[in-house]
Amino acid sequence: MVSLMLSATPRTALGRSKERGQSDRQALYDVLDSGLICHLGVVVDGTPMVVPTGYGRVGDTLYVHGSTGARSLRAAEGTEVCVTVTHLDGIVLARSTFNHSMNYRSAMIYGTARRVTDPDEVITGLYALTEQLSPGQWDAARRPNRKELAATAVLALSLAEASVKVRQGPPEDEEEDYALPVWAGVLPIVTSFGTPEPDPRLTGDMPVPDHIAGRR
Amino acid sequence: MVSLMLSATPRTALGRSKERGQSDRQALYDVLDSGLICHLGVVVDGTPMVVPTGYGRVGDTLYVHGSTGARSLRAAEGTEVCVTVTHLDGIVLARSTFNHSMNYRSAMIYGTARRVTDPDEVITGLYALTEQLSPGQWDAARRPNRKELAATAVLALSLAEASVKVRQGPPEDEEEDYALPVWAGVLPIVTSFGTPEPDPRLTGDMPVPDHIAGRR
Repeated sequence: MVSLMLSATPRTALGRSKERGQSDRQALYDVLDSGLICHLGVVVDGTPMVVPTGYGRVGDTLYVHGSTGARSLRAAEGTEVCVTVTHLDGIVLARSTFNHSMNYRSAMIYGTARRVTDPDEVITGLYALTEQLSPGQWDAARRPNRKELAATAVLALSLAEASVKVRQGPPEDEEEDYALPVWAGVLPIVTSFGTPEPDPRLTGDMPVPDHIAGRR
Repeated sequence: MVSLMLSATPRTALGRSKERGQSDRQALYDVLDSGLICHLGVVVDGTPMVVPTGYGRVGDTLYVHGSTGARSLRAAEGTEVCVTVTHLDGIVLARSTFNHSMNYRSAMIYGTARRVTDPDEVITGLYALTEQLSPGQWDAARRPNRKELAATAVLALSLAEASVKVRQGPPEDEEEDYALPVWAGVLPIVTSFGTPEPDPRLTGDMPVPDHIAGRR
């Protein structure tokens, strides 16, 4: 496993980690930019709450959003949160149960969630969120109106304190286990997009736009 | 969106939820049994930490495990944790950016993580974890030895306090937006298994076992 440390704080300083500079920051961007949801961790009444939610990235800022009434967002505002994005790439089948594992890429970000109040930055955040979900969609769909903006809370999180963990490749068995008559290897996990399903209420004969139909 | 409440505590009592009895418990099992990883939330030094990790279920107990030295497991032991399992099923493309969403199934479980010390239950937990990752693998691979068991911490979490959230189907647009010339619908997300990749160190001509090659 490769653990990439992107900051020098103890909680992201992983065991065998090492500062690798710019290439690590690119690894962080790669994990974030290819994801669809994160798991947002907040502390509510002293206990953790882990919520799956969309996100978007602009430079070194991550944006999440939700209803102004959402408990997780209210709890997160102004507090330390943890955001984790995980991609599963394969099941690692070893000769011993002990050495079974997953191939994955994950990013973990710690920081204080800042409520975005500047109207321009709210739009920036919503743009990033929409484009992360479906690139090209910001220009295709109706943009938020004043009422919708009033009902939406956007939170920003700096990417300053982050770590990336990656495991790829075959199992790592105990040396004495390699002689065992047990099949070992990786079962890849493939995530792909299916055929777009038109809303039954679509009117007329509207083709699926290229930015949706052609997404890979 | 359908929110299924499986317990009567405030934090899993979701807004429009309703007790639905046995069918809800089955929905919880379905979400858990078809997943590969959870996101485990623990509080470390007052701030949340969200860690992707494997899990297994036996009845109404969820098991996670890790190295006895893992910070997240040490922090979790005996404390309130939150475990979330999320399946993404599709990107919901609406006529307005505001009504974009995801189709998903997720389960959220709250409880006190109990360190498993009974040797039989440790094996039960590791069996469940291995079979969740790859059904049939417990019988195929070498089982844990004493040294490996000593290096492994297994934590148990009751499923008593849990909620299930499901969103399926087309977008729900504002009534006045249905006339807009914007394509709307769902882009399905499909997760599947690829062709097994044998470990380069496999000896002889060993076929891929059916429980791996035939997995769907």
